[in-house]
Amino acid sequence: MAEKAFEKKIKDFRAGDFVVGFFYIKVSEMKTTTTNNRYMNFTFSDNTGEINAKLWDSDEENVRRFPAGIIIKAEGRIADWQGQLQFKIERIRKSLETDAIAVEEFIPSAPETGEEMLSYIEKTIAGFKNNDLKILASAVIDHYRDRLLIYPAAKANHHSVRCGLLFHVSSMLRAAEALTSVYSFLDKDLLYTGVILHDIGKIEEMNISDSGLVDSYSVKGILLGHITQGVGIIGEFSVKTGIDPEITLLIQHMILSHHYIPEHGSPKFPLFPEAEMLHYLDIMDARMYDMKKAFESQDAGTFSERMRSLDNRQIYKSTIYAE
Amino acid sequence: MAEKAFEKKIKDFRAGDFVVGFFYIKVSEMKTTTTNNRYMNFTFSDNTGEINAKLWDSDEENVRRFPAGIIIKAEGRIADWQGQLQFKIERIRKSLETDAIAVEEFIPSAPETGEEMLSYIEKTIAGFKNNDLKILASAVIDHYRDRLLIYPAAKANHHSVRCGLLFHVSSMLRAAEALTSVYSFLDKDLLYTGVILHDIGKIEEMNISDSGLVDSYSVKGILLGHITQGVGIIGEFSVKTGIDPEITLLIQHMILSHHYIPEHGSPKFPLFPEAEMLHYLDIMDARMYDMKKAFESQDAGTFSERMRSLDNRQIYKSTIYAE
Amino acid sequence: MAEKAFEKKIKDFRAGDFVVGFFYIKVSEMKTTTTNNRYMNFTFSDNTGEINAKLWDSDEENVRRFPAGIIIKAEGRIADWQGQLQFKIERIRKSLETDAIAVEEFIPSAPETGEEMLSYIEKTIAGFKNNDLKILASAVIDHYRDRLLIYPAAKANHHSVRCGLLFHVSSMLRAAEALTSVYSFLDKDLLYTGVILHDIGKIEEMNISDSGLVDSYSVKGILLGHITQGVGIIGEFSVKTGIDPEITLLIQHMILSHHYIPEHGSPKFPLFPEAEMLHYLDIMDARMYDMKKAFESQDAGTFSERMRSLDNRQIYKSTIYAE
Amino acid sequence: MAEKAFEKKIKDFRAGDFVVGFFYIKVSEMKTTTTNNRYMNFTFSDNTGEINAKLWDSDEENVRRFPAGIIIKAEGRIADWQGQLQFKIERIRKSLETDAIAVEEFIPSAPETGEEMLSYIEKTIAGFKNNDLKILASAVIDHYRDRLLIYPAAKANHHSVRCGLLFHVSSMLRAAEALTSVYSFLDKDLLYTGVILHDIGKIEEMNISDSGLVDSYSVKGILLGHITQGVGIIGEFSVKTGIDPEITLLIQHMILSHHYIPEHGSPKFPLFPEAEMLHYLDIMDARMYDMKKAFESQDAGTFSERMRSLDNRQIYKSTIYAE
Amino acid sequence: MAEKAFEKKIKDFRAGDFVVGFFYIKVSEMKTTTTNNRYMNFTFSDNTGEINAKLWDSDEENVRRFPAGIIIKAEGRIADWQGQLQFKIERIRKSLETDAIAVEEFIPSAPETGEEMLSYIEKTIAGFKNNDLKILASAVIDHYRDRLLIYPAAKANHHSVRCGLLFHVSSMLRAAEALTSVYSFLDKDLLYTGVILHDIGKIEEMNISDSGLVDSYSVKGILLGHITQGVGIIGEFSVKTGIDPEITLLIQHMILSHHYIPEHGSPKFPLFPEAEMLHYLDIMDARMYDMKKAFESQDAGTFSERMRSLDNRQIYKSTIYAE
Amino acid sequence: MAEKAFEKKIKDFRAGDFVVGFFYIKVSEMKTTTTNNRYMNFTFSDNTGEINAKLWDSDEENVRRFPAGIIIKAEGRIADWQGQLQFKIERIRKSLETDAIAVEEFIPSAPETGEEMLSYIEKTIAGFKNNDLKILASAVIDHYRDRLLIYPAAKANHHSVRCGLLFHVSSMLRAAEALTSVYSFLDKDLLYTGVILHDIGKIEEMNISDSGLVDSYSVKGILLGHITQGVGIIGEFSVKTGIDPEITLLIQHMILSHHYIPEHGSPKFPLFPEAEMLHYLDIMDARMYDMKKAFESQDAGTFSERMRSLDNRQIYKSTIYAE
Repeated sequence: MAEKAFEKKIKDFRAGDFVVGFFYIKVSEMKTTTTNNRYMNFTFSDNTGEINAKLWDSDEENVRRFPAGIIIKAEGRIADWQGQLQFKIERIRKSLETDAIAVEEFIPSAPETGEEMLSYIEKTIAGFKNNDLKILASAVIDHYRDRLLIYPAAKANHHSVRCGLLFHVSSMLRAAEALTSVYSFLDKDLLYTGVILHDIGKIEEMNISDSGLVDSYSVKGILLGHITQGVGIIGEFSVKTGIDPEITLLIQHMILSHHYIPEHGSPKFPLFPEAEMLHYLDIMDARMYDMKKAFESQDAGTFSERMRSLDNRQIYKSTIYAE
Repeated sequence: MAEKAFEKKIKDFRAGDFVVGFFYIKVSEMKTTTTNNRYMNFTFSDNTGEINAKLWDSDEENVRRFPAGIIIKAEGRIADWQGQLQFKIERIRKSLETDAIAVEEFIPSAPETGEEMLSYIEKTIAGFKNNDLKILASAVIDHYRDRLLIYPAAKANHHSVRCGLLFHVSSMLRAAEALTSVYSFLDKDLLYTGVILHDIGKIEEMNISDSGLVDSYSVKGILLGHITQGVGIIGEFSVKTGIDPEITLLIQHMILSHHYIPEHGSPKFPLFPEAEMLHYLDIMDARMYDMKKAFESQDAGTFSERMRSLDNRQIYKSTIYAE
Repeated sequence: MAEKAFEKKIKDFRAGDFVVGFFYIKVSEMKTTTTNNRYMNFTFSDNTGEINAKLWDSDEENVRRFPAGIIIKAEGRIADWQGQLQFKIERIRKSLETDAIAVEEFIPSAPETGEEMLSYIEKTIAGFKNNDLKILASAVIDHYRDRLLIYPAAKANHHSVRCGLLFHVSSMLRAAEALTSVYSFLDKDLLYTGVILHDIGKIEEMNISDSGLVDSYSVKGILLGHITQGVGIIGEFSVKTGIDPEITLLIQHMILSHHYIPEHGSPKFPLFPEAEMLHYLDIMDARMYDMKKAFESQDAGTFSERMRSLDNRQIYKSTIYAE
Repeated sequence: MAEKAFEKKIKDFRAGDFVVGFFYIKVSEMKTTTTNNRYMNFTFSDNTGEINAKLWDSDEENVRRFPAGIIIKAEGRIADWQGQLQFKIERIRKSLETDAIAVEEFIPSAPETGEEMLSYIEKTIAGFKNNDLKILASAVIDHYRDRLLIYPAAKANHHSVRCGLLFHVSSMLRAAEALTSVYSFLDKDLLYTGVILHDIGKIEEMNISDSGLVDSYSVKGILLGHITQGVGIIGEFSVKTGIDPEITLLIQHMILSHHYIPEHGSPKFPLFPEAEMLHYLDIMDARMYDMKKAFESQDAGTFSERMRSLDNRQIYKSTIYAE
Repeated sequence: MAEKAFEKKIKDFRAGDFVVGFFYIKVSEMKTTTTNNRYMNFTFSDNTGEINAKLWDSDEENVRRFPAGIIIKAEGRIADWQGQLQFKIERIRKSLETDAIAVEEFIPSAPETGEEMLSYIEKTIAGFKNNDLKILASAVIDHYRDRLLIYPAAKANHHSVRCGLLFHVSSMLRAAEALTSVYSFLDKDLLYTGVILHDIGKIEEMNISDSGLVDSYSVKGILLGHITQGVGIIGEFSVKTGIDPEITLLIQHMILSHHYIPEHGSPKFPLFPEAEMLHYLDIMDARMYDMKKAFESQDAGTFSERMRSLDNRQIYKSTIYAE
Repeated sequence: MAEKAFEKKIKDFRAGDFVVGFFYIKVSEMKTTTTNNRYMNFTFSDNTGEINAKLWDSDEENVRRFPAGIIIKAEGRIADWQGQLQFKIERIRKSLETDAIAVEEFIPSAPETGEEMLSYIEKTIAGFKNNDLKILASAVIDHYRDRLLIYPAAKANHHSVRCGLLFHVSSMLRAAEALTSVYSFLDKDLLYTGVILHDIGKIEEMNISDSGLVDSYSVKGILLGHITQGVGIIGEFSVKTGIDPEITLLIQHMILSHHYIPEHGSPKFPLFPEAEMLHYLDIMDARMYDMKKAFESQDAGTFSERMRSLDNRQIYKSTIYAE
């Protein structure tokens, strides 16, 4: 049927389209209308965006069959509901093995694979001259290897994609290598270890679904926060590995101070140059990520929407890039 | 000689007095005048206050004999130097065993002995119904017993006296007992443990001299701070004692949040009532200590000097107290 | 009919329920739909919560019969409307004397009666040694007796229930008694008078309905505020009773400074210990009230919703309380 | 003797000058040197400035004869002491009636007499159409007439001169008259009364010496502050005069809000246009006073010193004024 | 038809009214319902207010015929949609020349004509004694004459009406004239030039529609802001006219500092009295404008809604004005 | 004479030393003692530090011969005056050509020569692909070439040394090159031009002495500031060179926003990625400079003094660097 838009990805949906495709169920809930009808209210996503979807006249059976966190095939009409697009589902089923779906197609993911990025990080560690730092960094990375390979770096802010945490760390590590050639008095091993471990507490702070996206914050995450958790993790591994307490202290301070100001969660300001640099590497990488992402869906010569992750700024994409 | 003021304590010194007495050397340094003369510049203290003191025409021998941290006997004249009193030393010698000096006479100390206060705290712990909290609190107190018996609570702020830390904790504990009778939904054992352990990190944050006064901050203290150190200590003792991780988490959160606002060092706000109450117990006890101390050297119907520890306020001592 | 949920209170309503019961009309308004139909839009409450309710096809007669501030009997179906429960009214009538309704069942009220709490406060005043404070406190309490017996302490924040003001004051007074046993240098009569009178200006700041809930702020309340009004009330009663001006001044300062920081309405910081303590008693009592209330509708091991009155915090209810 | 600089005023003193003249003693105190010599340490002032002065080899007799607050005749040498000028007194005596000294010559005073300014204010009041405002303003002005005729407006900030309060008020009143011709919807009588009474609490907040300069803050001034005191004064006079309570409330709100922001002492923001305008009249008059004063001792084309009263700004005096 | 409310202005519309009239289309957009119907969603305005309007069953033809920025004649029914009034259009056509519509009736405009106000400003400039200021002010005003005659002063804040910029400037100029009679040390020509040119950058910062209302901010406006743009404009005209660089600098500083605090866009505080005064003239005029506007739709004895332009304050309109 | 310390640099002076050497006169002033003696008060500097120096019994002749900004030869004794070292001059003369003094020995200077650094910058510009940016950057650099070769970047903060401005810019440029390899979506030419021109306004903001150190701020610098001045310079050169207005605007925005927050002088936040990155390059370079400088005079395992340029932080120099 010519009307069907099978190849369309969510970002290309327009009001009036009739579409068929595979989607990831990000949110799934049963609701009841004022006229006492029950319907499923979904958020569908693919790797280009997300859309609200409704399945009318639903029952408990549907609740069981279409929970959040799975991939389904659906078809239906796209409508405009008070300025927002909405997917009115006409047919829906679970994806089958025979559909041969690749999860990365449906879940926003880092541009490199976790294995590639982790391998780069491990090679860097292998090159350390400082043995205590090498022992510490290796031990922590080994322990969290499986989770590192899929963890995002956030629930809603920068790098909130599958493998986002590794992507953030490996990108910062490349920047750190570049900058130590300019600021050569910095201790490379110390700075690199700080970069590699600075957000390790996030793995304990957030719970993720199978898909590699954040589901919720853990109780411990809400009561302590990833900075305090990270300091604790370094403490534990230091005891286990028996490394020099001065090394432990330096890395703990770097984690503690990397948000820089108290209101952002750092009770201490950076007190040595590698800690100071770690902060700038972190914030620069987050900003570049968010601005690059804004540019992707923006025409030259226009401003973006106001972006929460950028303190509500509108980003300007100059026509200069087109030249 | 009638003029000598042997019994006078420092707070009673007046310009023109000739005095003899025992003093604690708080600061000791060699200086050189513009005319190239060398002299010792001291800060003397007793349990009523402190005074600048000068020993003219000194040499290296004096530097060795009169270091900071010892008690000496000195006599000399009190002068007014640009609005400040100054002790011009005429004779000075180290105190002898035969002088039978009690250290509490020269060093500002808590009004109760460390043993009395620690005994009260231990009895409270012994009465806990929650076994995990009892195990944790006992283990930490046992470990730090010797230092707790002399540690102050600060270098310059409230409770910066010998045994000041125990005095602060035991005073808060009495207040906590009083308030749980009003707010009876609070978990007593949890609140009391929070009170007892909230400042335990200070023992690692500050180095003290033999006298029980703070000498300096430790490197770890400056790089992490007593809140983060306290969270770490609870983590270590929890591993050692194998208590319920929920208990560990609650106490860590109480320590983490007890300064309440980020600018004061707490990266998380209190998120349950005992943590909230701990903050108020802490700040109330500090304020009452400082105001009571201000009143001690103040006449009814007058204002105190502006006090740094009270955000620069002048405290009013009404005539109502005299009635 | 088995389906009817006569005994259910609002907090137990679920989508799909058919319910019958008595409710307090908190809000009542006539609205018109796009299709030009008119309906009544209500907020119903009982002492467990509140719910939106709609009466379709209404006319001016309904506006007259079902104003805010009365108790009615209603039956209808509970529906889920965009995530919020909604009561679709099928029958409604005013409550009759024969229904024998107790107002406390429908209006959130303090857990003790106004008479009990006022009696406790008056006994405390009767025990004062300071005669001026006794005269002042008695005069003010006598003057406002009738209103004190029903006034809430706020429109929307802590203690915004019938008799909430007395409940707040009597709870603080118990805490003040408890704490003066620890901080015994405080003047008991001065502190207790400050506690009793600190919010007296609220009676002039807010207008209440017959039910004892706040209706609106008075013009004077908006232009001056309860702190300035309270200072003025103390001034007037001091002139009338001829008490010692120093006493007047101390109580005025305590009222003026009890919110502590300028942004919260206090142009002066507390400048004596009883004023300082009054602030902590006030804030502690508010916090404990709000947290206790959050706990009431919360399961162990979970976080509450974000609470506006607690600076948007989510409160954690540990499983420890269950033990 | 040609060297004597009898006609010189303090602002013209230079290091090395030998001077003779009459001065007001602003500060007087006995001090003792390290070599145990006693001397008088004075601050002398005339209507052009002030200077530190020292009288060596003094005794108790000098303390009695030369207290603060009197006018003396002195001669001596001006020296530079660490960058500050200092008056080394060689001869000193009290001024005699036969010296025929005019106090305005020695005490910084407003440029108009108190009587002139008060007369202008009273004529303005006499012209009010609103009878309640006329009654209130007259009653307050009458009551404080004697003090108004000499009171300064501050201890150290703007208008801290003899008659400074009246000068501030009358200057603001002229500006208010000018602006109501532009913003004609403003109620003139209301605005003028606000201007006339806005700082009336300062008379109770500060104690002055006979000279009309501020000596100290009163206990009531420190515990309540002139804004709260002013609100109280209006309350008292309203009761006495029986005026319309709405009028009382408006004027109380204007006083309460005239510092605009909480941190500057106003617990409420202005909530009607006359209150809003009063704030701007007040701050404008203070700023113009301070900047005009800075210009007086400044060359064209230069910056002033950093001025505390102007938030530490340096004021630029352009060469444009010379044209 | 008696039911028709032809003479009604928008502010008098009530739910249920059937109305006919001319309106300005402020917003025009095509939307699609869930049931896939398309409709035009408008904002209509006249000089009393604005209202949402809907034209059902629309097509692309309607989009072309009824764009934003034109005046139309429409009739239809007023309904209440979730607490907001909505105009359900039954008939609509463009206004015709024969309708003889005056644009001021539909677009909020200043109370004086642009020509009158500009003439007043030019007469003021003609009276300048300082030739450089006269040259500069004239050159800038001449250059922007056409736009000045219609520009508003803002998109949504104070003076966001046709000719609003001139109205703001001429009102401030009258106030400046009034105040220089009180603060006579101010340089009149300098202050007046600052007043006249302080917001000139707004003409480049904002794009307006033919109607004289702001359409959007220019790219340059968002990237630089009217203050920096204004400084640049003065720089350009100074080069062109060859005036004294000191004059250029003074006016640039006045523009740069007129928002006073950095957070409001001024990187420098005012550093001379005319710059200081300019700030107060600006803020006073904005406040008086907003408060006067609030009063216009407010009954005596009531508070206004919370107003965003007045930092969310509710303004009180006392009954005193009625007297 | 064995006692003389001819080779000693200022940082090695100790109380009691007798020294001979060449020094730069940073400050020179005549003062008078209380006993009416006149003396020269100097600040001497070399490339290791500075010291107060006094020449007793001086006259006007000395004022003329030893002004600030020249190099002299002096000998004398080093004394300790109230904790500060002081140079008591016994002999002093101007340096002679025959002394063959290299100015870099006496004036703190960048580690590379101005020519080397400028050459690197010009090569970078020569490689630009964007012709407008090449034209703009070249034109500005050519115009300011002579001053760039000696200008410091600040009076007292980071890079306040001879050639400091070029050192800051070239160091940032190297870092920018390194980072664009990581964040490759950035426009290199745009970022590099922003780096090269971001502080160009400083040349007009500050006046320097012949030595290449800042003497004072210019009137224009104080009234406008280097950010506004820089925006103006770009505006002028854009007019002269006729480049694309979009390019002008981008560079002006980068200069305007490079301090990031309003309180630091940027009225706009960065609104595109190169502007964002410019800020981080700037602050990182300043911090690295200051921390590296702190390390130079610090032992491993110790904290530095509190440093004003680092928000009063003490920097820790770990023992890790020694390994």
